[in-house]
Amino acid sequence: MIEPKTLKGFKDSLPSEEVYRKNLISNIEKTLSLYGYYPIDTPALEYKEILLGKGGDENDKQIFLFKDKGERDVGLRYDLTVPLARFVSQHFNQLTFPFKRYHIAKVWRGEKPQKGRFREFYQADFDIIGTNSLSSDVEIIFLVFDLIRNLGISDFSIKINDRKLMHDIFMALKIETFEKQILSILDKYYKVSEKEILHELESLINSKATIILELVQKARSYDFFDYLKEEFGINKSRLEEVFEFFHKMQLSNFIKLDLAITRGLDYYTGLVFETFINDGLELGSICSGGRYDNLTALFSDITLTGIGGSIGLDRLITYLTEKKPVDESFSNRCLIANFSEKDLPTYFDLAYELRKEGLTVEIYLEPARLKKQFQYAEQKKFRFLLLMGEEEISRHVYKLKDINSGEEQEYENIEKLCSYLKNPQKSTNL
Amino acid sequence: MIEPKTLKGFKDSLPSEEVYRKNLISNIEKTLSLYGYYPIDTPALEYKEILLGKGGDENDKQIFLFKDKGERDVGLRYDLTVPLARFVSQHFNQLTFPFKRYHIAKVWRGEKPQKGRFREFYQADFDIIGTNSLSSDVEIIFLVFDLIRNLGISDFSIKINDRKLMHDIFMALKIETFEKQILSILDKYYKVSEKEILHELESLINSKATIILELVQKARSYDFFDYLKEEFGINKSRLEEVFEFFHKMQLSNFIKLDLAITRGLDYYTGLVFETFINDGLELGSICSGGRYDNLTALFSDITLTGIGGSIGLDRLITYLTEKKPVDESFSNRCLIANFSEKDLPTYFDLAYELRKEGLTVEIYLEPARLKKQFQYAEQKKFRFLLLMGEEEISRHVYKLKDINSGEEQEYENIEKLCSYLKNPQKSTNL
Repeated sequence: MIEPKTLKGFKDSLPSEEVYRKNLISNIEKTLSLYGYYPIDTPALEYKEILLGKGGDENDKQIFLFKDKGERDVGLRYDLTVPLARFVSQHFNQLTFPFKRYHIAKVWRGEKPQKGRFREFYQADFDIIGTNSLSSDVEIIFLVFDLIRNLGISDFSIKINDRKLMHDIFMALKIETFEKQILSILDKYYKVSEKEILHELESLINSKATIILELVQKARSYDFFDYLKEEFGINKSRLEEVFEFFHKMQLSNFIKLDLAITRGLDYYTGLVFETFINDGLELGSICSGGRYDNLTALFSDITLTGIGGSIGLDRLITYLTEKKPVDESFSNRCLIANFSEKDLPTYFDLAYELRKEGLTVEIYLEPARLKKQFQYAEQKKFRFLLLMGEEEISRHVYKLKDINSGEEQEYENIEKLCSYLKNPQKSTNL
Repeated sequence: MIEPKTLKGFKDSLPSEEVYRKNLISNIEKTLSLYGYYPIDTPALEYKEILLGKGGDENDKQIFLFKDKGERDVGLRYDLTVPLARFVSQHFNQLTFPFKRYHIAKVWRGEKPQKGRFREFYQADFDIIGTNSLSSDVEIIFLVFDLIRNLGISDFSIKINDRKLMHDIFMALKIETFEKQILSILDKYYKVSEKEILHELESLINSKATIILELVQKARSYDFFDYLKEEFGINKSRLEEVFEFFHKMQLSNFIKLDLAITRGLDYYTGLVFETFINDGLELGSICSGGRYDNLTALFSDITLTGIGGSIGLDRLITYLTEKKPVDESFSNRCLIANFSEKDLPTYFDLAYELRKEGLTVEIYLEPARLKKQFQYAEQKKFRFLLLMGEEEISRHVYKLKDINSGEEQEYENIEKLCSYLKNPQKSTNL
């Protein structure tokens, strides 16, 4: 006998979890589709040369690589960005630009398994390829706002910054040679103490460290852009335009300037953002991204600019299951008790009629003891048990038992039963 | 520069195809969910020993096997049945039986690539585990009926047979030693001539070949079960009970007895079925399955009986795109033209209001020439272009251009615009 087990770092998804994930994904897809983003898909396996060398050595080590039967060097994708770059280069002539797509799919990384981190997980990416316009910067942030709101989350902030503006500031301060290091120190701003940040910056740029930290503070006040003009001679930046837009839209409560948001990855070149839920800050950012200018450079002569984001599905599931669990007790799902196999046509007829109205209805699949059927309904969190015994069938009535309250009620026809099941809260008098 | 290409036997899915697949899958999931089937998921990778030896040598050769970084022998799943068996054995105590689940996911097989056959494709499986009741046989067939009907297909047949009954017939004819061979000859009934079938059967069971072929004919008439009683002494079989049920439900036009449906795979032990669309017979069966009695035997002491089916998603996509293409010209999708970046707040406000009403609205992301924006709308099959130029904004009107007809119309407020967009066919007078 073979021991039934999943691989180290991998796990099954049971119905309770998978229903939740599917609902979340479908909510996200609905919003994306209203914005005209279309789905694409790419193979789980790619040629090794497509995958390697895109995200540094550490990344390469985590890729599941092997030889297929044709001795080709292949690997499982570790993100959805490299496949997107390949996809856009390969199908360039078949796509309409600006190309707006989303891709929600699994990726694989041979990371050291940690609590809550697995070697197989979902990514949910959305991008606009082929325009550097203000509109595209604005749309991505607006889309993030709408995506999160549509999940029923109302207290959150999208923190924005711009790598290009940071570069201009570093130029003005003549510290641009340390750009990469400064950005990566600032990236730790919310993880370590301000003192530590200052200390690290000082060892790099001496007294200019305090200017940088002052700027991070100032960016939280409205006159920040005036200050940049006066002190640094930096005229209207893209970040200022984006910020003005959201001010006009009266969304300044949600969209916040934050120079400490720099994003770890090297490839960002413009606007960058991270999203935090105010009563779930410990999760970190639940939606991050930014503008990158060289998406297709590795695969094509045509270099395309892009901007996009990635939703942290697992973090969102953690938050939502805790803070906004679906109240399953109020479900109106119904189990038809199975008294005798000779009455199957009655059960199936009834189930068919109710399902046509969009109601979830099961027939218990064995003529078992009623107690067992009752337990099954409870375990699957069905609220109602429909009792169509010999007597009810001969009297042409529909007897419904509410599992929560224990109450039983008879209905004289399917229409009345159906109308109650569709809205059991509202009906007080039958 | 790296050549952007997909692996041999693999392919990308472009938006036009992926939108179609997602709609199809979501339609199928909706029906399954109304029947109380819950989704599960399992990892793409499994231990080699879990995957090997389940479907014969030919099967094993097609599995993508390799060693991971921890020198573990692993492989990509080649179907969703073996993972289900492992899943049920592993999580036995967490599941509610009868366990009704579905699983729609990719599988990988290193087959020789042929036209329309790829090394990566979707399977869509649904099963009931843990009951051998008549109800469960009936439910699976009824579910297939409903799944296909809900896809808008109305002219189809589900052909049913029962391996157990076939066994009883072979016993009565004393040819049970040739059971496996006879079943596999009958499996070719619709692919080769009847003469060939007869010839193959004769070389195996001599004159009894004609009896078998006569039975195949007789099974298409109503007195078949009486005939079985009289000639073979076979009393009421499960297949007869299932058939009687569908007769009572007045579904005999859809559910047909057919002894030539035997299913290739060894593991079926009871009811088996295949589904054919009458104007798409060349596709073969679009939904097949049956009862198996030893699902978990390899992984557990507890042997569970199951019955399930698998939907041929790719075949259905081929059929539906040809026979029932979505009429995209009647779409009400709308592109807001971008005249100037200073008016972005107006565009985004408007888009937000329309999307709240469930309308798909894009803003063109650059203030480009109108001709270019118009072409974009046409390429993405948007029907409307909303023209909010300086004049329209100052006059507080909404000017909508119908791309099909070229007509332009002004609306005095968002409500009127929205109500027209929601139902452009019905409104004749504005």
